[in-house]
Amino acid sequence: MTSERECINRILHYVQNHDRDYLIKGIGDDCAVLKKDGENCLLLTTDTLVEGVHFDMAWHPPYLLGRKCAAVNLSDIAAMGGKPSTCLLSIAFPGLVPAWLDDFISGFTSILNEYDTLLVGGDTVKSRNDLIISVTVTGEGSRKQICYRSGAKPGDLIWVSGLLGNAAAGLELCRRYQFQPDEVPDKWQVLLQAHLDPEPQIDLGRVLSSSGFVHAMMDISDGLATDLAHLCQESCVGAEIQQELLPVSEVLENAAIEMNAEVLDWMLKGGEDYHLLFVSKASDEQKLRQLISDTFGREIFCLGRIIEEQGVFLCKSGGERQEITYQGYDHFSAQ
Amino acid sequence: MTSERECINRILHYVQNHDRDYLIKGIGDDCAVLKKDGENCLLLTTDTLVEGVHFDMAWHPPYLLGRKCAAVNLSDIAAMGGKPSTCLLSIAFPGLVPAWLDDFISGFTSILNEYDTLLVGGDTVKSRNDLIISVTVTGEGSRKQICYRSGAKPGDLIWVSGLLGNAAAGLELCRRYQFQPDEVPDKWQVLLQAHLDPEPQIDLGRVLSSSGFVHAMMDISDGLATDLAHLCQESCVGAEIQQELLPVSEVLENAAIEMNAEVLDWMLKGGEDYHLLFVSKASDEQKLRQLISDTFGREIFCLGRIIEEQGVFLCKSGGERQEITYQGYDHFSAQ
Repeated sequence: MTSERECINRILHYVQNHDRDYLIKGIGDDCAVLKKDGENCLLLTTDTLVEGVHFDMAWHPPYLLGRKCAAVNLSDIAAMGGKPSTCLLSIAFPGLVPAWLDDFISGFTSILNEYDTLLVGGDTVKSRNDLIISVTVTGEGSRKQICYRSGAKPGDLIWVSGLLGNAAAGLELCRRYQFQPDEVPDKWQVLLQAHLDPEPQIDLGRVLSSSGFVHAMMDISDGLATDLAHLCQESCVGAEIQQELLPVSEVLENAAIEMNAEVLDWMLKGGEDYHLLFVSKASDEQKLRQLISDTFGREIFCLGRIIEEQGVFLCKSGGERQEITYQGYDHFSAQ
Repeated sequence: MTSERECINRILHYVQNHDRDYLIKGIGDDCAVLKKDGENCLLLTTDTLVEGVHFDMAWHPPYLLGRKCAAVNLSDIAAMGGKPSTCLLSIAFPGLVPAWLDDFISGFTSILNEYDTLLVGGDTVKSRNDLIISVTVTGEGSRKQICYRSGAKPGDLIWVSGLLGNAAAGLELCRRYQFQPDEVPDKWQVLLQAHLDPEPQIDLGRVLSSSGFVHAMMDISDGLATDLAHLCQESCVGAEIQQELLPVSEVLENAAIEMNAEVLDWMLKGGEDYHLLFVSKASDEQKLRQLISDTFGREIFCLGRIIEEQGVFLCKSGGERQEITYQGYDHFSAQ
């Protein structure tokens, strides 16, 4: 098997989710969505992080790793416009220093507390080699306001909630400065933080989903090229983004120059930015910008448009049009 | 850290589950219990199975392993007297043969279908060395009928729903006959099946929890000695069980003789039987036996009594009284 998608497709072959009135959305979005009562839904999501694949203990302080393991799941709740409520934590480890576990749990619960989410259960088991952390988060949302990946229509504007590529640059910095994170220059701390301690966009997700302007949404975990392809596939549409509209910071450009790296690769393929990717009608552009500016004092970035033609395309400054469908991070082939 | 309990206690130190009206039970039972609506509760449970620790691919056929990974979670729902509803599956693997995944998922979904449970999400990721499977199952139950570990009172009778030790004997058979499971004699297939393909006691759990006779319950996953200690600890009581009341089959006794093993160790410490352990008032003994006999045509087994003195004690046939508290399987120290 060569990709996570192929793996999921094999699994889907065996899933027979006959009509059940309590199942609103199963496999295929950021969360499963179940009926809770007349008005509200239960959201369910799970993510597994593996040592040496998703994180490296050489440079990831346990407190921040704990935060990140919760954050990536909270981000899935944000992607539906939901509110997180409870969490289950499973840890499989080959051997563990009590002080490491204390720091990890302290970080894990710190971010849960910030988002009013309770740790209500889990499992601790021994593994032979790898430290593997599986987290399940439940959330809630009003049935009318939950945003799925599947609502995009040709002509819609494509938005992201923040700068792309910072987390990928932060990972590259960790790799280069491993064992001496203190030696990373101050100017790059923002990149380091994007990788080590990402922030789930819970409040933004809730405002976007309840605004009435946003009709498809997901989070960017695997990189824009792959995640936009997911959104397009679920919506049976395509996407065209403009290179010059991609939000890039000076610090990211400088880091790319100093590390001799490709800033566009970080932005499109790097993943783990955990910003929200969403679409709106073109006619709602100004109202949406104004709402987010008024509510949070922050900017959102329009990248391009949804098109009828299937696929994700990058329009370069020189006029060249390049297909980038699913060119981001793949959990399965990554090593 | 020397035990799973020590690990969980360290985690509990950081958990601040302030009064939340939606949280009925957090860490410390077979499932977390959350309010769903006025009458019903949502049950949440997760379990992680690790290659080389909880299963061995040398002898565990993928179809049966898939069934078992779901069964151990369904058993936690049974232990509360609940009805399972949905499931999330996370698989971390170093490399995978598509045919293996097909068989695994086919088994996994087969048992979900038997218990009317939908696979609604999950995660597939790469690991470096170990195959690790994390499953989360949600369930439902009427708030009035859910059974916790904490309801046992001195004088109560202690019951198990079936034969103990078969799964431990089955594991020993797998170890001895590895790579040639077909060579295991027919007479021992029942033991093999107990280890490879355990049956969650969903229907029995629901009947017991709604009977009004049972006021504490859990499943036996880590062995009677450890699981009874958990139940006693949560109920602030102790337990005294009679060796001559332990339900043992002839096939288990014969297997112990032929393999030169200790049948009592299998029954008390082996774990993975996934039978239900529960308590009732002494005065309800006959009504309880009759109910289960009438409903399922099967027997349940009374092992002894709940006592005030803390600890779990085995009263041997000769009159000797031996403490066996927490002498079962420990996920953390096992290798």
